[in-house]
Amino acid sequence: MALEKGDFVLIEYTVRVKETGNIIDTTIGELAKREGIYESSRLYGPMLVVINRGWILKSLEEALKEMDVGEEKEIELPPEKAYGPRDPYKVKVFSIREFRRRGINVRVGDVIDFGGATGIVKSITGGRVTVDFNHPLAGKTLVYKVRIVKKLENILEKTKALVSRHLEIPMDEASIEYDGDSKVLIINIPTRIMTKKNIQYAKIALVSDIFELLKDYVRKVLFQEVFERKTSEEYGEERSSTSDTGGKEVTQ
Amino acid sequence: MALEKGDFVLIEYTVRVKETGNIIDTTIGELAKREGIYESSRLYGPMLVVINRGWILKSLEEALKEMDVGEEKEIELPPEKAYGPRDPYKVKVFSIREFRRRGINVRVGDVIDFGGATGIVKSITGGRVTVDFNHPLAGKTLVYKVRIVKKLENILEKTKALVSRHLEIPMDEASIEYDGDSKVLIINIPTRIMTKKNIQYAKIALVSDIFELLKDYVRKVLFQEVFERKTSEEYGEERSSTSDTGGKEVTQ
Repeated sequence: MALEKGDFVLIEYTVRVKETGNIIDTTIGELAKREGIYESSRLYGPMLVVINRGWILKSLEEALKEMDVGEEKEIELPPEKAYGPRDPYKVKVFSIREFRRRGINVRVGDVIDFGGATGIVKSITGGRVTVDFNHPLAGKTLVYKVRIVKKLENILEKTKALVSRHLEIPMDEASIEYDGDSKVLIINIPTRIMTKKNIQYAKIALVSDIFELLKDYVRKVLFQEVFERKTSEEYGEERSSTSDTGGKEVTQ
Repeated sequence: MALEKGDFVLIEYTVRVKETGNIIDTTIGELAKREGIYESSRLYGPMLVVINRGWILKSLEEALKEMDVGEEKEIELPPEKAYGPRDPYKVKVFSIREFRRRGINVRVGDVIDFGGATGIVKSITGGRVTVDFNHPLAGKTLVYKVRIVKKLENILEKTKALVSRHLEIPMDEASIEYDGDSKVLIINIPTRIMTKKNIQYAKIALVSDIFELLKDYVRKVLFQEVFERKTSEEYGEERSSTSDTGGKEVTQ
């Protein structure tokens, strides 16, 4: 067994649906562009997997564990090892009045949320709306082409990979400072992501992963956001006489 | 003149509409409760005003400037010095079909936004909806009872007051560290407000005020959010042999 529980690896993968050959997901930006599935908000490039963490399909994870670093493999996952079989009972028919009453102007292809259950509108005929609540990949056999790019051994690399995963910035943009003696980790937040949606929740999820996955090495995590004054021309221009500058003062 | 441009003062105020005597706003929590206008999300207590900063009505600011610290005054502001006269042309009548077409179920008292202009639905009769786009306080004479509680002289007090204003935490909960030599200000963000709505924008607005209002004293602002591992029992339990701990390492 090449990899075991808790190992940090970077993987590259491409998934296609066996029946159609359509590529539905990939970590490779260029390929995503060529296939017309590129999402501009997504971070492409090798993706962090912590073995047995459940971030990817269990069957894919099991296959990874048998692989060596640098190895590439094609893995075929039948529906029962991927997103399950298609359940015909999960296809429901509604009256179009149900939607109109709620002020919803429904169209074929719409994704509808019924109290947590997500369905896709398949057809609208004769006042009847057919909604499929199966997972879009249910019933599909998936073919993963996966490569283990690298195994991360170093605490700094591991931390940067976790920062990259949660804050959605490239690993080499992750700015961290780590002190192994005090087990304090400082993570500098780049200004450009400061107001990114859900950034504060991302930080909390990151800390939670760090405390679980690097628990022997990190006791304290400190996020820093730094602002410096841009102009220095005004300096000293309007210096007032208040006497509250000098010396380091610390208050609670 | 007791106060001048740029002075930091904490004020307490209560506003009532002259005609009705109704209290419509106050910085005093107990009074707000008694009057039934208490908002649980609001921070009550003395409020920071930086003179000539435009945070409050200009006419109120001018009145403040003539006051001494500790002084209380009643200030009457006619409409033209408060929220302007009522403009009858700002009362518009719409057909109820206009609303229905957009799927809006309109009711008397609803606040409606028409592309930036906010109006209140005054009446609905015979298929006609009357919406008043005047400011709710337009045409009202306001009576402010205002007291200057304190003038802030010290850089730490001023900073704490700005932190309190923007992050909406009491001044004594504002945790800051200031080094007058390097002009670096560290602001610690309490965990409980980390995921508060718009907290990241609040930080940016705070920095902007600090750099403008305390420009001689602060060159760099650093926000810190600290997390410490709660449990220490697991410590040393699963210590691995990876050799990446000791020493302080800094990476970009």
